[in-house]
Amino acid sequence: MAIVLGPNQYGKAEVRVVAVDRATPRHSLVDLNVSAALRGDFAAAHTAGDNAHVLTTDAQKNTVFAFAREGIGSPEEFGIRLARHFAGSYEWVSGARVAVESYGWDRISVGGAPHDHAFSRTGGEVRTAVVTVDGSDVHVLTGLTDLVVLKTTGSEFRGFPRERYTTLPETTDRVLATAVTARWRHTGTDVDWNAGYDAVRTTLLETFAGTHSLALQQTLYAMGEAVLEQHPAVAEVRFSMPNKHHFLQDLSAFGLDNDLDGPGAVVYHADDRPYGLIEGTVLRDDVPAAPIAWLGTPGSC
Amino acid sequence: MAIVLGPNQYGKAEVRVVAVDRATPRHSLVDLNVSAALRGDFAAAHTAGDNAHVLTTDAQKNTVFAFAREGIGSPEEFGIRLARHFAGSYEWVSGARVAVESYGWDRISVGGAPHDHAFSRTGGEVRTAVVTVDGSDVHVLTGLTDLVVLKTTGSEFRGFPRERYTTLPETTDRVLATAVTARWRHTGTDVDWNAGYDAVRTTLLETFAGTHSLALQQTLYAMGEAVLEQHPAVAEVRFSMPNKHHFLQDLSAFGLDNDLDGPGAVVYHADDRPYGLIEGTVLRDDVPAAPIAWLGTPGSC
Amino acid sequence: MAIVLGPNQYGKAEVRVVAVDRATPRHSLVDLNVSAALRGDFAAAHTAGDNAHVLTTDAQKNTVFAFAREGIGSPEEFGIRLARHFAGSYEWVSGARVAVESYGWDRISVGGAPHDHAFSRTGGEVRTAVVTVDGSDVHVLTGLTDLVVLKTTGSEFRGFPRERYTTLPETTDRVLATAVTARWRHTGTDVDWNAGYDAVRTTLLETFAGTHSLALQQTLYAMGEAVLEQHPAVAEVRFSMPNKHHFLQDLSAFGLDNDLDGPGAVVYHADDRPYGLIEGTVLRDDVPAAPIAWLGTPGSC
Amino acid sequence: MAIVLGPNQYGKAEVRVVAVDRATPRHSLVDLNVSAALRGDFAAAHTAGDNAHVLTTDAQKNTVFAFAREGIGSPEEFGIRLARHFAGSYEWVSGARVAVESYGWDRISVGGAPHDHAFSRTGGEVRTAVVTVDGSDVHVLTGLTDLVVLKTTGSEFRGFPRERYTTLPETTDRVLATAVTARWRHTGTDVDWNAGYDAVRTTLLETFAGTHSLALQQTLYAMGEAVLEQHPAVAEVRFSMPNKHHFLQDLSAFGLDNDLDGPGAVVYHADDRPYGLIEGTVLRDDVPAAPIAWLGTPGSC
Repeated sequence: MAIVLGPNQYGKAEVRVVAVDRATPRHSLVDLNVSAALRGDFAAAHTAGDNAHVLTTDAQKNTVFAFAREGIGSPEEFGIRLARHFAGSYEWVSGARVAVESYGWDRISVGGAPHDHAFSRTGGEVRTAVVTVDGSDVHVLTGLTDLVVLKTTGSEFRGFPRERYTTLPETTDRVLATAVTARWRHTGTDVDWNAGYDAVRTTLLETFAGTHSLALQQTLYAMGEAVLEQHPAVAEVRFSMPNKHHFLQDLSAFGLDNDLDGPGAVVYHADDRPYGLIEGTVLRDDVPAAPIAWLGTPGSC
Repeated sequence: MAIVLGPNQYGKAEVRVVAVDRATPRHSLVDLNVSAALRGDFAAAHTAGDNAHVLTTDAQKNTVFAFAREGIGSPEEFGIRLARHFAGSYEWVSGARVAVESYGWDRISVGGAPHDHAFSRTGGEVRTAVVTVDGSDVHVLTGLTDLVVLKTTGSEFRGFPRERYTTLPETTDRVLATAVTARWRHTGTDVDWNAGYDAVRTTLLETFAGTHSLALQQTLYAMGEAVLEQHPAVAEVRFSMPNKHHFLQDLSAFGLDNDLDGPGAVVYHADDRPYGLIEGTVLRDDVPAAPIAWLGTPGSC
Repeated sequence: MAIVLGPNQYGKAEVRVVAVDRATPRHSLVDLNVSAALRGDFAAAHTAGDNAHVLTTDAQKNTVFAFAREGIGSPEEFGIRLARHFAGSYEWVSGARVAVESYGWDRISVGGAPHDHAFSRTGGEVRTAVVTVDGSDVHVLTGLTDLVVLKTTGSEFRGFPRERYTTLPETTDRVLATAVTARWRHTGTDVDWNAGYDAVRTTLLETFAGTHSLALQQTLYAMGEAVLEQHPAVAEVRFSMPNKHHFLQDLSAFGLDNDLDGPGAVVYHADDRPYGLIEGTVLRDDVPAAPIAWLGTPGSC
Repeated sequence: MAIVLGPNQYGKAEVRVVAVDRATPRHSLVDLNVSAALRGDFAAAHTAGDNAHVLTTDAQKNTVFAFAREGIGSPEEFGIRLARHFAGSYEWVSGARVAVESYGWDRISVGGAPHDHAFSRTGGEVRTAVVTVDGSDVHVLTGLTDLVVLKTTGSEFRGFPRERYTTLPETTDRVLATAVTARWRHTGTDVDWNAGYDAVRTTLLETFAGTHSLALQQTLYAMGEAVLEQHPAVAEVRFSMPNKHHFLQDLSAFGLDNDLDGPGAVVYHADDRPYGLIEGTVLRDDVPAAPIAWLGTPGSC
């Protein structure tokens, strides 16, 4: 028996780069959090402390800033440029993974007109991109995290099996809330990334809203199916969706009902933990799988 | 010398109540995080474990849910109802403080039309309200936290004194970014709270955008002054504004400039810590001070 | 009516300084998070963007690092040195507040012997110090946050009043858990800060453990009283103690009891929110109050 | 082309169960955060909203509490019991994954003696266990997260290649700090889990301390190698170790040196972001791989 080195990677994580385009008085900005990782032959660093193969993580950080000087473009384009650069930096580097979080900024409206150089940060979801270069292959996952959505009706949950530990009553009308994490893999790289992101996001929201839900699993699948139907460049979608429970509060001890159809507001308690966690993949059956595209990305089951 | 009990309060914190108005097919919801605290004579609980004066925090929680059944209205109205109720619950209760965080929800747009019962959570700032009832006095602070704003130009910082530890160069063009926490005290309670909140928020954003900044302190003061000038019902504004540093990245080691006026994007590094922290109050000089209105609210210097 | 500037302060927050004493092969380290704030006449910066009075926050940061070069000593001593320096830096500076978080490190034990230069971070509570210099006055608050403690028995809660919204049953045996934030004000500065901290921490823990609790308020008061009785240099203690609820889980639906005295483990659910929040002060009645010592410190009610 | 359902799982996450053994006056407690997930044929729930196969996440939660009533034992034993139960609950359930975080509690010492029923929460790392049942196979990963360690010397970093973006100077004496996440896979389930955990933890700490580090990769590998050499029941170890940078502060602008060998303390700045991130696996070459054991566990590269 021998003890050996297995899969490994290293890089610089969470480089917070902001690039401002000042070419005209109407500035624009891109605000990213970039994490790079290199794969290849780094065995000697592990077994002998020999760093001859180790492109420093400090140099990776410098590269992020230097490349940003030429303009960032979309998170995906920036990730592709960086990942190709890193993967091609030395013969012993076989691949690279670049993960990007992108924070949105809206122009502040002053007197009804969008301001040239003042912005407020868009709340809500964070746009993500994960680019994996493996030899000459390039894989791109576009995505978003923490898109918090809720339906006040149009959600049922019933027909489940009942065993010793099942006490949950069935319901035909519950609050359904989740924080969507979704990532969609593209079949290629000839994509209008920013327009594509907006379009998929719209599909996700419209499908969540429009689906009469019998299970969060059903909503998840419908969202994935709609993305694949409406966006030919997408091969596969993976979701991680917590079921953020909103429990109908029992007010009967105070002589109050809490009927869905009664007068007054219906009162729920929003719970933190525990929560359901639904994870699933929806994909085309004629596109080759690409497990390496997902390597290291959390929430893939 | 004797050891004695000093100021004290207790209550239930972070009750997550969601109230849904289902009176018509077009639902609406209010999503709050409510913290209550009672003040008064609770000495025996402390010194003897005698709970005869202790309205339980569990009952406070129940009250939040029960009152929500009648509809919440604005966070301020709900806070006033609750604080008056708690302060009047027993003769030994002299006052109450109710702090509310309010989370916004936007209707999801489906095919261009706002959906009746599907929502996405508004990102960005959290709206806050702090209601203090002290005897028959009612004080209301409306506010917001974490309104993240940024200017890509229109910000200078120069003319500061230089001593042994001062190494910062002067600048006539820097990125200015902050996460605004602001709270404004009202002179009374006859206020259209929701419309007033929106209007003050607009004033804050427009003034941040429109002020050519020589110091974050100047921007802070301008924002407070504008609120007081435009909103007669506001007596006082307190701000806590971190200076979220965006440092121009030095790219010269790679043979690159990073000039503000050159071609390409200008590249900054967004730093986490340390950050400047600017805190200040702007107020009318003809309105009586109300320190109790601010008791227990962080960020008041 | 005029609009005027009220109380204000500014400074550099969260300077993460680590100082290593390498004078002998047995190294030691101090690991701090330092936040400074200056008070005084900074009106012109606010109203006119005139920074002639503004000692830059960058210089404050530099000062923290430069002063650390001479050795940090205890958090309190370091805070006093810094606050006195800042308060004395210019005639228009009337005072300074320096808040310090201190992170503990234990020597890693190798073969039973403490290592000379390898450490693991002490978990649990963070030690805090808040130094306020106001003119020639110096106030020191020592403290800790997030000291999480729990009793599995020896805690009752009964005898409380019952009104419409009170549904909580009385109990003579519950789990009591809290995360103690405590700050104690010293009557002077001639104190062995590190030994004093350890001694007060021991008093807090022993009193929490040893008090048969009839209310968390009673435990809080007992802890403060013990500190004052045992530590003459302490004038006042302020606590903020969440009641971290552990609810007995009802297992009857599965044909199981959950009796405190039955066989098997007693099963509780640890809840996140809401939680009770108990805040209170215990002090000597013959020591002058010092509200400025507490200005800007959260959790003071 | 067809759109199909791919890999999926669902369950209840973050069930916070606390079990107290009160069999004698000397109580003990186990404090866990349990997340369960089921794998199998849940296609109908996704494609048709048919929940006939969906053991509710609410029932999963109930099961956690009910099983705790019999006593929890070690996190691994509890995870095995639960995962086997879930995997065997219905014919369409092919497997289950149960992930457990375990929080430690120390007895409070009163007058030098450990208290019977008062505890303070152990800080520092969280112990973890991940149990995967797949048909009749059982895989167990024991681990820890956030074990923060630091060396003030005995760490070099040099010999790395230099290209256009490499500006980092070589060093023969730097601070090395990391927050260890490690997970080790066992070859079987006949293990003394609690004793084994303590022993591996000791090996990790002693190896970190005792290794003169030429690269964090080298330290990582040495830690894994030592675990495998000293613990025959372990087949494989995976690490995720951020390089938490501590930069030597340049004080020259203030006329101060910051020499490693000079008088006074050596002053570092602890940075938050970016950080290096080193991930790697160390394993025996004669043990079959078990990718399913790691499915869904973050940090596996």
